[in-house]
Amino acid sequence: MKFVIIGGDAAGMSAASRARRNNPDLEVVVLEQTEDVSYSACGMPYNIADPFREIDDLVVRPAQVFREKQGIDLRTGHRVLSIDRSAKTIAGRKESGEEFQVDYDKLLIATGASPIMPDLPGFDLPGVLALKSLEHGRLIKAFISGGQVRVAVIIGMGYIALEMSEALRDLGIEVHMVKPRPDLLPWMHRDLAVMVQKELEENGVNLYLGHETKGVEQTARGLKADFEGVGFTCQMVLAAIGVTPNSKLAADAGLELGPGQSISINRTAQTSDTDIYAAGDCADAYHVVTEEKTWIPLALRANRSGYAAADNVTLIKTELPGVAGTAVFKLFDLQIARTGLTVKEAADFGFEPEEVCIEGRTRAFAHPGVSSMGVQIVGDKKSGRLLGMQIVARDGAAHRINAPAVALHNKMTVDEFSRTDMAYAPPFGPVWDPMLTAANQLLKKL
Amino acid sequence: MKFVIIGGDAAGMSAASRARRNNPDLEVVVLEQTEDVSYSACGMPYNIADPFREIDDLVVRPAQVFREKQGIDLRTGHRVLSIDRSAKTIAGRKESGEEFQVDYDKLLIATGASPIMPDLPGFDLPGVLALKSLEHGRLIKAFISGGQVRVAVIIGMGYIALEMSEALRDLGIEVHMVKPRPDLLPWMHRDLAVMVQKELEENGVNLYLGHETKGVEQTARGLKADFEGVGFTCQMVLAAIGVTPNSKLAADAGLELGPGQSISINRTAQTSDTDIYAAGDCADAYHVVTEEKTWIPLALRANRSGYAAADNVTLIKTELPGVAGTAVFKLFDLQIARTGLTVKEAADFGFEPEEVCIEGRTRAFAHPGVSSMGVQIVGDKKSGRLLGMQIVARDGAAHRINAPAVALHNKMTVDEFSRTDMAYAPPFGPVWDPMLTAANQLLKKL
Repeated sequence: MKFVIIGGDAAGMSAASRARRNNPDLEVVVLEQTEDVSYSACGMPYNIADPFREIDDLVVRPAQVFREKQGIDLRTGHRVLSIDRSAKTIAGRKESGEEFQVDYDKLLIATGASPIMPDLPGFDLPGVLALKSLEHGRLIKAFISGGQVRVAVIIGMGYIALEMSEALRDLGIEVHMVKPRPDLLPWMHRDLAVMVQKELEENGVNLYLGHETKGVEQTARGLKADFEGVGFTCQMVLAAIGVTPNSKLAADAGLELGPGQSISINRTAQTSDTDIYAAGDCADAYHVVTEEKTWIPLALRANRSGYAAADNVTLIKTELPGVAGTAVFKLFDLQIARTGLTVKEAADFGFEPEEVCIEGRTRAFAHPGVSSMGVQIVGDKKSGRLLGMQIVARDGAAHRINAPAVALHNKMTVDEFSRTDMAYAPPFGPVWDPMLTAANQLLKKL
Repeated sequence: MKFVIIGGDAAGMSAASRARRNNPDLEVVVLEQTEDVSYSACGMPYNIADPFREIDDLVVRPAQVFREKQGIDLRTGHRVLSIDRSAKTIAGRKESGEEFQVDYDKLLIATGASPIMPDLPGFDLPGVLALKSLEHGRLIKAFISGGQVRVAVIIGMGYIALEMSEALRDLGIEVHMVKPRPDLLPWMHRDLAVMVQKELEENGVNLYLGHETKGVEQTARGLKADFEGVGFTCQMVLAAIGVTPNSKLAADAGLELGPGQSISINRTAQTSDTDIYAAGDCADAYHVVTEEKTWIPLALRANRSGYAAADNVTLIKTELPGVAGTAVFKLFDLQIARTGLTVKEAADFGFEPEEVCIEGRTRAFAHPGVSSMGVQIVGDKKSGRLLGMQIVARDGAAHRINAPAVALHNKMTVDEFSRTDMAYAPPFGPVWDPMLTAANQLLKKL
């Protein structure tokens, strides 16, 4: 049997490795359009911040290991352009321009997601960059390393935009962040967003909220980035307004799509064609809170769905767990974490959400180094269920968030969660963990 | 109605405050044998380590606040000596020597636990100390502050002993720790115990395992602490071999006792006498994994059981949740956390335990500052259930442990736990959290 995988990043290479491990006789072909496979994409902002590290330090396993040690037929520089489902073949073009065709018994689409580039003048200029693939990282690093970037403009204020603001500040670059909508991190409780905004300002990041992008042009003095009501002369523009799933191949082949134009898959990672699987950032997922489809492209899910596809292809029946949308990022000295639904998402899915947002402490009463910890919690008035949590703090947010995530998988009520036995020692929090205090406060409103 | 509480520490004062809040007409009398109420006992080692802080900085709420703001009849210096259940009175003696008697409608015993002092010669000498109450802390702090302690011997190697080893080292004191049994932290997986032992040794703490205590004597050159095979001349001996519940009052009154001679209570914090409740370190609890009684004296449980007693006394029907034995402590640069059962405990309760212990990483692949994280996980071969976890690491152990704790409350299987959606960002761990990796490894053995 021949298992063909389109895309050699987290999901694709996880699937390839797992499939070969499950069945060493299986023919596994991976077609990757770039030359890079298996790298830590999330590590790029930190790598870019450090002039003494190479971007290729992020490569977890080089291509030849997959080829020689694992017997995977890994073909880089292969861009797939179409899928013929009736003939069970895919066709594409190599970097050299040569066309190719490959037949498959089972196919996995693991094409990932791409940064959205504004359809405006100047976004094809050199110095107007995005960050998603290792090649993007390489470009940014090369561009910065010359020392010619003194001022950078970041368009967008999501995870990647914010992580990149820190990386650029670490390099001594003046940073201006611009977005069209008026709210910083609109999914976040306003009290927590204020903590984040303060952290950015204290670290010299200039924020411009509510300014639509007009375009970028090359002038004698550098790039001129224009927005409604504000403009900057700079040497670099980073477009980080979001990502979109690479689902065109699938859509063109008539496969069903899900939320955000992601590829719709069932719990076995199968698309609407039983011989075609999809995994990673291009595919959708069930949400453990709503039990409905969602599209939350994150690394752990990419790995898991790759494994699940490989297991099912090799006849090890595996059901994918749902996602809770658990995520964390670091921003200067803050940890910003979330899991589950926001109030708005909860209302959209038919819950009757209530929330509280408390200011707790990172350490015990009278313990040195204590700082404040913001915890927002969402519950459902009708069922009492815990629906989501957000935590912002200088320490302890990143790993705390896994506790409510586990609670969401178990469909716990806020009351049940409030009665769980959590760890306490003075250097790590108060006797009543701020998550428990938040739950106790919310109970009064449910 | 008159609610009388014996003991003014965490459980007692939690109960007093909650009862008055629930029912402002309730007469609440608290009898506390010392002069100290409502302080952060767990903060004492950190306070002792810092010569610029007073031990009284740990007082959360002074006695007069309880008296004047909350209308609690708080009587310090009142030692209760007996309970007459048929007459519904308690009797005791004040610090002045004067005897007193108080009648009750509902009684709460919140007498806490006491350090076990070896019944050996010399343990009543000045300089031979223990640490449980604020008065103990005051004594130690006063004893150390003169600068005459150059060498200290700690007997025992539990949480308090270890935290105190750090405090004394921080003060530049030479520390020798001695225990009779051969294993450091016998409940811990040996690979993790090795990490702890290394941390102690690197911080200049001298360990002597497997040496029975013989006694202490005063010599011209200081205290002489003698053990089988080893002896030390020192200025201070800290006895930290464990604590025992203060249940004599209850036992003398004929109340049922539970594990470790703790006072047996049901889920409403009621003892075997329906008019008498018990809460805090003197009382037992149901374990969420075994559903059997256990005695794990910890601060959160003390608060919770105090609240539960007050709620039930004021006719707000409340059931106490079980405990998972979730605990954490800091030791120099290590965080040491556990929840649930050890392999031995699991076997004792009829499970068929399997464990793995893995070495994970605190940060992502190629991320600066990465260090190793030891994770042990226990599961049941028969049911597949998750039974316990232990984590040791330089960061991220303290709050990670709450995720498996929540899982234990939900009686999740190792498989279900391994499929939960946890947070990932390079500064905080690998894509697959070490807890998930440990669960995946254990699944192969179940």
